[in-house]
Amino acid sequence: MILITNDDGIRAKGLKALAKVAREFGRVVVMAPQESRSGMSHAITSEHPLRVYEQKSEPGYREYACTGTPVDCVKLALNRLLEEKPDLVLSGVNHGSNDSISVFYSGTMAAAIEGCINKIPSVGFSLLDYDQDADFTVAEKYVRILIDRVLKNGLPAGICLNVNIPALPEDSVKGVKICRQTDGIWQEEFVRRTDPFERDYYWLTGFFRNFESEAEDTDEWALQHGYVSVVPIKTDLTDYDLINTLKQWDYED
Amino acid sequence: MILITNDDGIRAKGLKALAKVAREFGRVVVMAPQESRSGMSHAITSEHPLRVYEQKSEPGYREYACTGTPVDCVKLALNRLLEEKPDLVLSGVNHGSNDSISVFYSGTMAAAIEGCINKIPSVGFSLLDYDQDADFTVAEKYVRILIDRVLKNGLPAGICLNVNIPALPEDSVKGVKICRQTDGIWQEEFVRRTDPFERDYYWLTGFFRNFESEAEDTDEWALQHGYVSVVPIKTDLTDYDLINTLKQWDYED
Repeated sequence: MILITNDDGIRAKGLKALAKVAREFGRVVVMAPQESRSGMSHAITSEHPLRVYEQKSEPGYREYACTGTPVDCVKLALNRLLEEKPDLVLSGVNHGSNDSISVFYSGTMAAAIEGCINKIPSVGFSLLDYDQDADFTVAEKYVRILIDRVLKNGLPAGICLNVNIPALPEDSVKGVKICRQTDGIWQEEFVRRTDPFERDYYWLTGFFRNFESEAEDTDEWALQHGYVSVVPIKTDLTDYDLINTLKQWDYED
Repeated sequence: MILITNDDGIRAKGLKALAKVAREFGRVVVMAPQESRSGMSHAITSEHPLRVYEQKSEPGYREYACTGTPVDCVKLALNRLLEEKPDLVLSGVNHGSNDSISVFYSGTMAAAIEGCINKIPSVGFSLLDYDQDADFTVAEKYVRILIDRVLKNGLPAGICLNVNIPALPEDSVKGVKICRQTDGIWQEEFVRRTDPFERDYYWLTGFFRNFESEAEDTDEWALQHGYVSVVPIKTDLTDYDLINTLKQWDYED
């Protein structure tokens, strides 16, 4: 059984594409936010209660909308909805990229990471096209390949995959490239506006800045050059190299 | 200049404790959420605009409340409020622990990670006491030591510190212990309730489960044994060990 969620909401085209391909592999349960919850990262909802609305139930397929975040969806499905542990947690296909540092802001990747925290092989998929009506045909091909390979080979506990797919015609995609996370940043440019009552407010906008655009082993490079990027992402954030240095500091008062 | 934020909101006692100690080291700017935004992780606000309200402005100290998340606060301060790049970004002192896997859900740690993404030495502080009126006296001592050491030694780009402080009297605290992130999970137990209209809803609750409670090099062990835990946290989530394995899989159609 495969559990699916996303952060663009239950009606997103990318979710339907993912569910369609996943159903080729067996039973599927979808539990996704009722509305778009982009940029929610790993947020959880504890200050107000969650509601779940069944959308569809047919042999081998069930679909639920939830008032929570993507991570709430995974938690609630695992703890309340599913009778068994899923074989896979899949998230996406996101409308828009989630490579490089976006892994921190992305609700799509947070849901995959939550699956991974629960020791379930998990993959987040994103297509580099923010359009609500984006074409997921090529994405579906690579989703199919990656679901198959992850089911066959498994993934080590504590590691999930961040898969980004370029928005290109099928014959322009050069294949799958295993990468590392690009060192980059979302360079913010808050736009200031003034309301009718003379009070300022700010809109968060920004552009991606790549600190290592020549590095051919990064996900951003792969995507720029027509590859599907796959980055293994781990849930242990410890920097082991720094531990020894920090041990040498003096912490006496 | 030191930038400070938190996720418990501008009125939290832990924030005031952190600002008080930071002011011993120089100029301080506080930009914190107007209300509690616990569990917001790395969420950002792009679907509605942000507002900022000045609370205080005196020589060497300014304080602002923001309608956004902790990460919004750091972004907005860095991009719109501050004339210079801060020497440090500090977050907390959180009311409640953020060790082990909580680093993913925590708005406190997300704000520190956001400082780190911006290549600024950053530290998140948490006290193991959820009480609004918790006693931060002992926390202040360790905050002071760690601010001093980080200012003196610096931190490598891409690495910040996750500092958790046990809720113990001063002479029971055994000192600072450098640790790795514990492998653990928040085991959810959604409580189901029924509203007056016969509709179910769910409250997210849970308890922490430690998968390696005997491992003496983990932050959870340190805290259980009376130490202040310090974990170096990195923003590159790539699992480099798995890259070679993944390269050996066949991705042909």
